[in-house]
Amino acid sequence: MKTAKTQVKRVPKRGHYDFETIASILDEGLVCQVGFVVNGQPVVIPTAYGRVDDCVYIHGAGASRMLKALMTGIDVCFTVTLLDGLVLARSAYHHSMNYRSVVVFGQARAVSDPQEKRAALEAFTEHVMKGRWDEVRSPTPEELAATVVLSLPLTEASAKIRTGPPIDAEDDYALPVWAGVLPLGLTAGEPVDAPRLRNAVSVPENVRRYAR
Amino acid sequence: MKTAKTQVKRVPKRGHYDFETIASILDEGLVCQVGFVVNGQPVVIPTAYGRVDDCVYIHGAGASRMLKALMTGIDVCFTVTLLDGLVLARSAYHHSMNYRSVVVFGQARAVSDPQEKRAALEAFTEHVMKGRWDEVRSPTPEELAATVVLSLPLTEASAKIRTGPPIDAEDDYALPVWAGVLPLGLTAGEPVDAPRLRNAVSVPENVRRYAR
Repeated sequence: MKTAKTQVKRVPKRGHYDFETIASILDEGLVCQVGFVVNGQPVVIPTAYGRVDDCVYIHGAGASRMLKALMTGIDVCFTVTLLDGLVLARSAYHHSMNYRSVVVFGQARAVSDPQEKRAALEAFTEHVMKGRWDEVRSPTPEELAATVVLSLPLTEASAKIRTGPPIDAEDDYALPVWAGVLPLGLTAGEPVDAPRLRNAVSVPENVRRYAR
Repeated sequence: MKTAKTQVKRVPKRGHYDFETIASILDEGLVCQVGFVVNGQPVVIPTAYGRVDDCVYIHGAGASRMLKALMTGIDVCFTVTLLDGLVLARSAYHHSMNYRSVVVFGQARAVSDPQEKRAALEAFTEHVMKGRWDEVRSPTPEELAATVVLSLPLTEASAKIRTGPPIDAEDDYALPVWAGVLPLGLTAGEPVDAPRLRNAVSVPENVRRYAR
């Protein structure tokens, strides 16, 4: 999957092109950024997504401007970024961040087959909350029809990863400045019951013990 | 700042155009996504940023393909997305996410004035870690020269925000399904000392008590 387009140009040693690395980053993320061009203007829109095998899926209402534009088969740049930590060096200049990101180039395709559409929506729900699909009401035929699902193949995809401590200029190691990494991660707080919740319905395990 | 370009099209009630709302989202985020067009191809690249008044700044090495492209004054779409929670409804169809996002359209400008450049880099460091700028070695003239700083005015900017519980279809409120919001946030773990740290240098307060 290392092509002229996907090759990581800046700091090439941070580039990764194997499917497992790319899939693991995609599976951990919750929000992607979808970049496309409308009348020459770049537009980037955050949205949720799911993955099935070697495709990512995005979805939304049929009225969505983004989905309508993408359905015409224009070029897409799909990205997911996970921030893993602040890299605090002894000099301002060498500060950095630890991160894992994926970039996918390609064209999206509208999913018309009802089976594939349902499978994508299941992957979508399961991606956000494992086990949720079987706990909730499934989409009706009307809801399925009202939902546009687009797929994007992971053909031209690459990952970029930075890990590890700050790298300082040699002279700076003598400075009496704390340096290191402050790990960052997305964590869940206490679940908040929705209004009008039926009595005796308690927070399920997958919500209570949620971790990415 | 509500223009034809920035107006939130999908779910307009989620659109916000006041400076305070936009600035508060920008100040909480750590990574932005910069969208631009190269030979007709949309490219989206995650990077760090800072804000001074009504401009956001990005920076990098002079060799950066993105910075070189943006310096020519092409159109940019700059976005920051904060994920606040999973919105778990009684049906798969009504699942959503709580989020705050900002989109800025415009053209970036290379900062050549050394004073402005230094101020931007200070804002940059302070944005990531309050108090850090005064604790670390300042940039040398060589480092300043090697760093490209671009500014983007917040002239055409908008925010989009979803908060609150899931909204279910009326018939679904009777279902014995847990529904609600699982709050999500970026939290810091234990600081990790860098190798070759000088003895007697301890983790500073701003790192130890870090919160976004």
